[in-house]
Amino acid sequence: MVKMIMHGCGGAMGRTIAGLVEKTEGIELVAGIDLHASGQETFPVFASLSECDVPADVVVDFSSAKAVDTLMDVCAEKKLPLVLCTTGLSEEQIAHVSETAKQTAVLRSANMSLGINTLMKLLKDAAKVLAGAGFDVEIVEKHHNQKLDAPSGTALALADSINDAMNDVYHYKYDRSKERAKRDPKEIGISAVRGGSIVGEHDVIFAGTDEVVTFSHTAYSKAIFAKGAIEAAIFLATQKPGLYTMADVIEASSN
Amino acid sequence: MVKMIMHGCGGAMGRTIAGLVEKTEGIELVAGIDLHASGQETFPVFASLSECDVPADVVVDFSSAKAVDTLMDVCAEKKLPLVLCTTGLSEEQIAHVSETAKQTAVLRSANMSLGINTLMKLLKDAAKVLAGAGFDVEIVEKHHNQKLDAPSGTALALADSINDAMNDVYHYKYDRSKERAKRDPKEIGISAVRGGSIVGEHDVIFAGTDEVVTFSHTAYSKAIFAKGAIEAAIFLATQKPGLYTMADVIEASSN
Amino acid sequence: MVKMIMHGCGGAMGRTIAGLVEKTEGIELVAGIDLHASGQETFPVFASLSECDVPADVVVDFSSAKAVDTLMDVCAEKKLPLVLCTTGLSEEQIAHVSETAKQTAVLRSANMSLGINTLMKLLKDAAKVLAGAGFDVEIVEKHHNQKLDAPSGTALALADSINDAMNDVYHYKYDRSKERAKRDPKEIGISAVRGGSIVGEHDVIFAGTDEVVTFSHTAYSKAIFAKGAIEAAIFLATQKPGLYTMADVIEASSN
Amino acid sequence: MVKMIMHGCGGAMGRTIAGLVEKTEGIELVAGIDLHASGQETFPVFASLSECDVPADVVVDFSSAKAVDTLMDVCAEKKLPLVLCTTGLSEEQIAHVSETAKQTAVLRSANMSLGINTLMKLLKDAAKVLAGAGFDVEIVEKHHNQKLDAPSGTALALADSINDAMNDVYHYKYDRSKERAKRDPKEIGISAVRGGSIVGEHDVIFAGTDEVVTFSHTAYSKAIFAKGAIEAAIFLATQKPGLYTMADVIEASSN
Repeated sequence: MVKMIMHGCGGAMGRTIAGLVEKTEGIELVAGIDLHASGQETFPVFASLSECDVPADVVVDFSSAKAVDTLMDVCAEKKLPLVLCTTGLSEEQIAHVSETAKQTAVLRSANMSLGINTLMKLLKDAAKVLAGAGFDVEIVEKHHNQKLDAPSGTALALADSINDAMNDVYHYKYDRSKERAKRDPKEIGISAVRGGSIVGEHDVIFAGTDEVVTFSHTAYSKAIFAKGAIEAAIFLATQKPGLYTMADVIEASSN
Repeated sequence: MVKMIMHGCGGAMGRTIAGLVEKTEGIELVAGIDLHASGQETFPVFASLSECDVPADVVVDFSSAKAVDTLMDVCAEKKLPLVLCTTGLSEEQIAHVSETAKQTAVLRSANMSLGINTLMKLLKDAAKVLAGAGFDVEIVEKHHNQKLDAPSGTALALADSINDAMNDVYHYKYDRSKERAKRDPKEIGISAVRGGSIVGEHDVIFAGTDEVVTFSHTAYSKAIFAKGAIEAAIFLATQKPGLYTMADVIEASSN
Repeated sequence: MVKMIMHGCGGAMGRTIAGLVEKTEGIELVAGIDLHASGQETFPVFASLSECDVPADVVVDFSSAKAVDTLMDVCAEKKLPLVLCTTGLSEEQIAHVSETAKQTAVLRSANMSLGINTLMKLLKDAAKVLAGAGFDVEIVEKHHNQKLDAPSGTALALADSINDAMNDVYHYKYDRSKERAKRDPKEIGISAVRGGSIVGEHDVIFAGTDEVVTFSHTAYSKAIFAKGAIEAAIFLATQKPGLYTMADVIEASSN
Repeated sequence: MVKMIMHGCGGAMGRTIAGLVEKTEGIELVAGIDLHASGQETFPVFASLSECDVPADVVVDFSSAKAVDTLMDVCAEKKLPLVLCTTGLSEEQIAHVSETAKQTAVLRSANMSLGINTLMKLLKDAAKVLAGAGFDVEIVEKHHNQKLDAPSGTALALADSINDAMNDVYHYKYDRSKERAKRDPKEIGISAVRGGSIVGEHDVIFAGTDEVVTFSHTAYSKAIFAKGAIEAAIFLATQKPGLYTMADVIEASSN
């Protein structure tokens, strides 16, 4: 039985994950960390990970960028594997992630869903063939009207995945209304649509001469991110120090 | 038999229309106007409409904004009905259109297809109900990688159609990457995707709580614009002076 | 304050509606009817409407076709307005609905969402123009893998709406794999996709020469059907006997 | 310079390919085979391949199933590589293809586009992860209203590609309207939409709990099939006897 700590147990994703852990076999929630817990939790809640004395095998984090540095220091010290789902980290923090991974297993991911992470992998192969043959690459993402950032971290991760496979030849284009010009073949256009309560949709478009190939992902609820985080936690609990991705979790489960 | 003059007969749309007129009953091409004609035309070609002495019932124009003022003056003088398909007119030119329409029938349209013009009309009704009930409005358009302007004239016309039905409460938003902010309910987001040889796609999205209604139009070839222009020419040839739209053509043909 | 009875309060939709009524102003749930209630309800539950002695203004029904005849008889006798959301009624039952509507207000609808009902209305106008101009009509619907019937009642209602506007010239086609033949212009193809937990998607496609117009609706949760049912209940509570549709509710609310 | 013979040069695809070969470097059309040639061809036309005495490096075939057996016999005898694009072959004919491939290089493909063939390959990987994790697989294809067969050969090839990766656990389902039953996890639903002049669209849908991944291909003109056939011809002209697929062409060109 994997013993898990939920870092950020008072937030929307934290509560969703806590609820889903209860229904998942092979893992149990032994403690939560949050300054703003509801008091209704069925597990002990601490203000910070360093104050938490409950023995555990893994920490799952859905908190905020400013809480992440202390979290990583404590995980490194306690050799606690860490599933890091918070996005919007600075370059310094990303370097900090790599440092932490020398001490304990760390999995960082902008999107925990099986679908997006499968796409992330397939897009590398698709890009080599299609972008290699001159197809233009464009991404359109859609989210609810309360989302603050645009484009989404997931859209950027999808673009990075393609760019990585193509030796970083691309730059990203967010606005075409300010100029009159033909499209630059070396750009990936990324459009952000906002409206209603859309959970998250991502279209990756390869447009060639007289044919278009589109890879689409639609999320219908936040539960898929919770499910992915828990699968990642079960996987990571038994791994050696190092940097992991959801691709490792998927590969392990498909073997 | 409607006698038609093609203004801009040397351009891509001009040639497509000329080819389609040959196969269409009830209309014939009696002359073309262009400085850059191919010399292969099966009809007489003149450098300007004022030099053209062939009797005609209607002019169809697919040229460029700078050629349009002289064109309108001559049409007004000769009382020649004018189907004006050139986009990107200035505000002065749009006022000039209204002036011209006092002398002869003028139909101006950013998109000649039956599908787009039907949507344009239905979107007004849709907006009153859905936008009226708090649904957010977003538009995504996709065109080939040679297109210079973004967003497309058609996307702007669709947005205007909705804004018009909603008493102009909306402003248009082309880029969300520069700020961290929730969506303003009074904005219509318009995204422009560019790639390959996509002829033209337009999605108008009404996103509400837990439901989304989308109106989509896909063009597979420029022939649909040619077909619409010819239908408009046949209609306009017998109309009194005034300003007309494709909605008038559609209404007339559905009666 | 509208006093509402939930007929079928123990089912999935009944529970969703009961939960949403609590958060809605202007309406309260005064009783539930179900043989299989959970015992956790915060309102009195009766085995049948005839046994229920709680004064009420309207009944909302999400039960099963076999429970509907008795329900209608009691509503007719008590002059209780009835929002009838159960689908799969027989022709005799549909005649029974008309009879009941002579005694009290009855609103019957295959789909309570604002989006679908708005489409239902717009599609009549679209069909007159587009189908009238020779565009082929096709419908694709997608639902979760537990749904028993195919195509969905909503898909059929959308098709009926179009057929109604076109003087019933169409027949419906569910399978093309058994023959080698060109499409009959007088058919509406209806395809049913089943998979995962898809709540409900409907695409109505008008395909012409070189252009396609698509009207799409995506539901992200059952809450939209609950919301529509409650709006219908508030509307119907004060109506005279007669047969009503969601179009009446939408029209009333947009005035 | 690859010398190519077009088998079926009088058909729509034959004429499209002939036109495109003229504009393609490294290949020339030295002869055509057809009983119904137009007489306008710029190359010699023969009634059958056995009558054709023009030296050549490769044959491209877009004819009909009944013409294919004689074609294969002559190619085997003359050791002429054969790009076989005709679909609807019987099982006996498919066995005949394998026999022919012992004598000369043969490439058989239901769809010559780069996009579809790239998807065909990626879908195997996607299926292992997503179908392996319990996602349901569905295919929706759309074609013009003159197409005789349904579902399309391409849709079946996509389904076969997935089935092949999953050890043939699936059967195909073309109609769900005749029964009331939950979806069988071991079925791939294949829906065929017909309308207007749609060139060809294929959606492969993986539907899981609260998320859907879709792989889509849209063809805008038959030119993409012509382009693929010519690339296949250039590739095949220099290959040893054996059975090849478009995947081999794509792999060779991406190296």
